[in-house]
Amino acid sequence: MKIIIDTYGVDDGIKIPIEGAISALKEKDFVPVFSGDKEKIEKIIDGRIKSYEIIDAKDKIENNEDPVKAIRRKKDSTMVKAFEKLNEDGYDGLVSAGSTGAILASGLFISGRIKGIKRACIATSLPTYENTTLLLDTGANMDCKAEFLKEFAIMGSVFAKNVLHIENPTVSLLNVGIEEHKGNKLAKETYKLLEESSINFKGNIEARDLFTGKTNIVIADGFDGNIAIKTAEGVISLFSKEIKDAIYKSFSTKIGGALIKNSLKENLSKYNSDSIGGAPLLGVNQYVYKAHGNSNEKAFSSAILGLIDYVNTNTIEKIKGELE
Amino acid sequence: MKIIIDTYGVDDGIKIPIEGAISALKEKDFVPVFSGDKEKIEKIIDGRIKSYEIIDAKDKIENNEDPVKAIRRKKDSTMVKAFEKLNEDGYDGLVSAGSTGAILASGLFISGRIKGIKRACIATSLPTYENTTLLLDTGANMDCKAEFLKEFAIMGSVFAKNVLHIENPTVSLLNVGIEEHKGNKLAKETYKLLEESSINFKGNIEARDLFTGKTNIVIADGFDGNIAIKTAEGVISLFSKEIKDAIYKSFSTKIGGALIKNSLKENLSKYNSDSIGGAPLLGVNQYVYKAHGNSNEKAFSSAILGLIDYVNTNTIEKIKGELE
Repeated sequence: MKIIIDTYGVDDGIKIPIEGAISALKEKDFVPVFSGDKEKIEKIIDGRIKSYEIIDAKDKIENNEDPVKAIRRKKDSTMVKAFEKLNEDGYDGLVSAGSTGAILASGLFISGRIKGIKRACIATSLPTYENTTLLLDTGANMDCKAEFLKEFAIMGSVFAKNVLHIENPTVSLLNVGIEEHKGNKLAKETYKLLEESSINFKGNIEARDLFTGKTNIVIADGFDGNIAIKTAEGVISLFSKEIKDAIYKSFSTKIGGALIKNSLKENLSKYNSDSIGGAPLLGVNQYVYKAHGNSNEKAFSSAILGLIDYVNTNTIEKIKGELE
Repeated sequence: MKIIIDTYGVDDGIKIPIEGAISALKEKDFVPVFSGDKEKIEKIIDGRIKSYEIIDAKDKIENNEDPVKAIRRKKDSTMVKAFEKLNEDGYDGLVSAGSTGAILASGLFISGRIKGIKRACIATSLPTYENTTLLLDTGANMDCKAEFLKEFAIMGSVFAKNVLHIENPTVSLLNVGIEEHKGNKLAKETYKLLEESSINFKGNIEARDLFTGKTNIVIADGFDGNIAIKTAEGVISLFSKEIKDAIYKSFSTKIGGALIKNSLKENLSKYNSDSIGGAPLLGVNQYVYKAHGNSNEKAFSSAILGLIDYVNTNTIEKIKGELE
């Protein structure tokens, strides 16, 4: 299996995706195909990978660029060249930590939309107290229509069944209250569409239940889904800081901290974004994974491993089947 | 000062608002005016309050009712009678843990909107690592227009200055990225309006910075603001559970837990909703506070004390001044 790795887009630089690939190779067999500055890439690899390819690309797409214009103009960028290579035979999946907008635009214009799908979306797996909840969309689509959210529900159901191995996954709609009449215009319209559909719809869910494991899939507009995951990130980072402060307060709290440190780490590590690493872009004709811009080596390695699992499930063909 | 207390709407029953009032009376001097079942209220008070009034009301507005219809039909409800009493001379403020929609509808139709304000909103104080960030709207308005969000920014600025004592408070817009072009149609339009306004606008903020204290005021559509605070509630409750589990895992973790328990409590208690208690409904002609439905005695007491502070600042007159 050949996995294309966009080496640009990680805050901490090109070293992270390469070290992430080296680390992922210890777990799974694949051929990494690095898109980026050939010289720099080879210098970092330094003979440590037996079999790999390089797509030599010097140009970069930045986060603050208009995504559609950027992918049209920057034909020599690491991202555009990576997506073009993905269309060639023998290349199986692509992971990038670059601009979400540019990944979406590349997915739509270079890989192409799945026939019957109007909007591609990003599906993030949230760790919960008991299991995992898939939230989609988490940022690809602003200003959604109800029919887009219905597509997210269908694609999320196929993904949850095939990649997360959940039989008949439950789908809930992110809303401000559980009652059917609650929410904005979009939520009310989506509720009706989902209720009439064949998916396993369980009604509205409030954001406080995103992490209780009450449902397998939560559907949201990309704006709201993004607000939810970033709020969660903010609170997790806040609590980590407060716990650290509480432990370093005095001599006895430091001893207490030493006694519970491992136990706390064990319980809280699953909420660390490193363990998740990335999220699939669903709705396009290729296997594309978005990694975090702030990824470290472990997070990028998790993203690659997640992408490999995703490629192995043949999910795109199954989504096509579901739409027929 | 006379504070009207709607005794209906708390999950744990009528006892909570009354005990909350008794507890608040130990901190501040006021005359509680209870709206609800006279007999039951007097039985619970049982001679423990010297000076109080009762608005005898038997009917109740439920969370699942259509708010506007409910306040029109249920003239004998605890909420409608409370809001009507608030219009009489000598009554200063009102607190209710009832349906947010019904409180909003009562505020708009019984208290009346402040002239020049198109939408009333709920302003929630979020505890952050360093100080407090005011988030508004947190659930009163679904489907907002940019001009409503501009009103929230103006009202939030007056509230932050007068009630939270922040000179020239900074205002940020909740968005999916910090760049000006990011977000949905509403966010882009609001960005322009805020930039042109006289408020101290600092641009977009991502949800992960809601708890870092980076800005004094965050403006959001009521749907998104609600998603943000409920996501935060969910993560806080999840982490509390995981910390407890980590402490109860073994003999040594229990000892460790005993050593850091007080320190942890000290650092984390400010994120407990009991310490905040309630949030003002800004934009109406009376001082109205929304308490949590899941309030305990302490939370309801905090809500009453917050309301008294709010009444004392003459904020409504200052909002009117700002709009002129």
